[in-house]
Amino acid sequence: MTIETPSSARLSCALSDLRATRPLVHCLTNEVVQEITANVLLAAGASPAMVVAEEEAGTFARIAGGILVNMGTPFPERLRAMRKAVEGAREAGRPWVLDPVAAGGIPWRDGVIREFVELKPAVIRGNASEILALAGAGTGGKGVDSTADSSDALEAARALAARTGSVVAVTGAVDYVTDGTRTFAITGGDPMATLVVGTGCSLSALVAAFCAAHPNALEAAAAACALAKRAAEVARRKADAPGSFHVAYIDALYTIRPEELGA
Amino acid sequence: MTIETPSSARLSCALSDLRATRPLVHCLTNEVVQEITANVLLAAGASPAMVVAEEEAGTFARIAGGILVNMGTPFPERLRAMRKAVEGAREAGRPWVLDPVAAGGIPWRDGVIREFVELKPAVIRGNASEILALAGAGTGGKGVDSTADSSDALEAARALAARTGSVVAVTGAVDYVTDGTRTFAITGGDPMATLVVGTGCSLSALVAAFCAAHPNALEAAAAACALAKRAAEVARRKADAPGSFHVAYIDALYTIRPEELGA
Amino acid sequence: MTIETPSSARLSCALSDLRATRPLVHCLTNEVVQEITANVLLAAGASPAMVVAEEEAGTFARIAGGILVNMGTPFPERLRAMRKAVEGAREAGRPWVLDPVAAGGIPWRDGVIREFVELKPAVIRGNASEILALAGAGTGGKGVDSTADSSDALEAARALAARTGSVVAVTGAVDYVTDGTRTFAITGGDPMATLVVGTGCSLSALVAAFCAAHPNALEAAAAACALAKRAAEVARRKADAPGSFHVAYIDALYTIRPEELGA
Repeated sequence: MTIETPSSARLSCALSDLRATRPLVHCLTNEVVQEITANVLLAAGASPAMVVAEEEAGTFARIAGGILVNMGTPFPERLRAMRKAVEGAREAGRPWVLDPVAAGGIPWRDGVIREFVELKPAVIRGNASEILALAGAGTGGKGVDSTADSSDALEAARALAARTGSVVAVTGAVDYVTDGTRTFAITGGDPMATLVVGTGCSLSALVAAFCAAHPNALEAAAAACALAKRAAEVARRKADAPGSFHVAYIDALYTIRPEELGA
Repeated sequence: MTIETPSSARLSCALSDLRATRPLVHCLTNEVVQEITANVLLAAGASPAMVVAEEEAGTFARIAGGILVNMGTPFPERLRAMRKAVEGAREAGRPWVLDPVAAGGIPWRDGVIREFVELKPAVIRGNASEILALAGAGTGGKGVDSTADSSDALEAARALAARTGSVVAVTGAVDYVTDGTRTFAITGGDPMATLVVGTGCSLSALVAAFCAAHPNALEAAAAACALAKRAAEVARRKADAPGSFHVAYIDALYTIRPEELGA
Repeated sequence: MTIETPSSARLSCALSDLRATRPLVHCLTNEVVQEITANVLLAAGASPAMVVAEEEAGTFARIAGGILVNMGTPFPERLRAMRKAVEGAREAGRPWVLDPVAAGGIPWRDGVIREFVELKPAVIRGNASEILALAGAGTGGKGVDSTADSSDALEAARALAARTGSVVAVTGAVDYVTDGTRTFAITGGDPMATLVVGTGCSLSALVAAFCAAHPNALEAAAAACALAKRAAEVARRKADAPGSFHVAYIDALYTIRPEELGA
């Protein structure tokens, strides 16, 4: 199979769509990254909202443009709200993104994640260890961090996409986004992003935002990855340590223009 | 009705009271903004504490100087703790502030917010869409963001204040603070504040802090709004993007002196 | 009793161990400080993970190198997860750290904290008011802030360590770390750290990280305190207000080299 580089024109178009639409993204995410997730969405050009009660998560998912379900800190009450949100998203035809945090590490969590994979997310975004585990080809990373390279999970990502019908994004030193047939590679970025909590989780939120604004999920996911990688590069030129990098990364998500997204 | 500009002397006095008192503010707020809320209070000169269990929220509210109840991410267990906190606040004569996040959007949430409005908060602080919804004159914004200008909600704010006995602050490009009879307008600020999550929610916490330190709730709420607007202006002069703006906003809350608060 | 200054060689060795091991730290901490706690661990050289469900907290504690239990925002479901995590830590022989936030303020909370003290944490890290309360010699601070100096709690810390078998770290203007027999004092730091929420709570997470990487809990806790104090000093030279200080503090945790840790 060939690996394509997404065209600058397509990436620019997706970011223009995001900025023009300013979609409302309903995030059911983990406890650790809620603030950075909201700030990443706001800086990039979307409108975040976290609605977490079972009583209103389904109603709100029908209002939102895109939905994020992140498995970083699941617990029974939150899982009930996530199920309602996914049900609402499916009924209203809204794209939703699954972030299978730490898949492959703990049986209870794996059971929960498997349940959501079967609910047909538009996109699954994870690191190599997570995607390998979901494809049945690995046994998890170190806590929330991957112990494999994204290229190690490329075939697993394709197989997972082919089996589930979801676009699969496996992110790392190189990001691969595949629908099982076509595969995009997005290069660049900077490893310092791994020293700021929530850069991966908020990338999944960006994927949901791009999917809400741009009809093609494969291109939308690729554009989200490209924006995050460009922002990390810009940030790294301004910052030598993770505190400053975090600030510069948020700034860059805001200042990068659509025409800068392509290679 | 006339609209007044709060006098510099009054605003300075309120901020001096805050810095001298360093009140303990008990925040029952949403999951997304807990860190920025605490940092805003610390920088401005108050002492934040989040005590969230039903078992201790009421006891703690009696110890605190002011209490914040923010409806961003309500769920049944947290609502029980909020009810205990409000009960404690009322019994101990402590001022409490209601932030009716996203009022007007979802029936379940509206029912919850209505219940708390009837419990007579000292101040209700919201955006235009929220205040219009509470006054029965609008149908909600876009998620947590207002789709109306604050001036559109001025009459609604006055009517809500007159009906409930609460001071009502409707914030936006111009902030209006009213007790139904007198109305203050606070101008300035910077729209970049809307790109940092929690600047609105933490303003409600600042209102609770000022109310704890300064006996007049109308002046206290106006001073909180004035401090936030001045800090946003200072931050905007130092920052061109939301990551840097966030840092500069916290810095400015700390460095602004009482005598700088007036126009 | 004498008070020792920890040797530069020992402190350097502990930080080298941390950077070489990059231990996985399982944090069951309060709602307010989850993001800064993760970022502090990442910057210093550890790998944070927050796993909060009762269903998986015990399993995950057996995988982690060190565990943090922080009592900032306890509630019944979270307490059940904390009990499972401590049980897992004890069975797997993993060091765990207790942060008794606001001990001495509310009877319900004090009962909960007492229960965990009896479960024999490797280290208890608190401020003076908290340690005085745990030792039965004080009645709590102002919310989460201490109203006493760390030196006021030195004897209480020694008594608590002698009674429980835990290393006790009482932090403040000077940090004291004691096992009841030997006592280290760590000086330096900067008071501006108290204006950034979570610097104390994340120090407890750092203690867990150092304990996971370095076998001697007394030295590990002293090294964590020394790293935090050095980082605060570096940050204060770059920043005059708490927003900038926060960024510079995270940066410094990353840039400080082992050989810089000693006085």
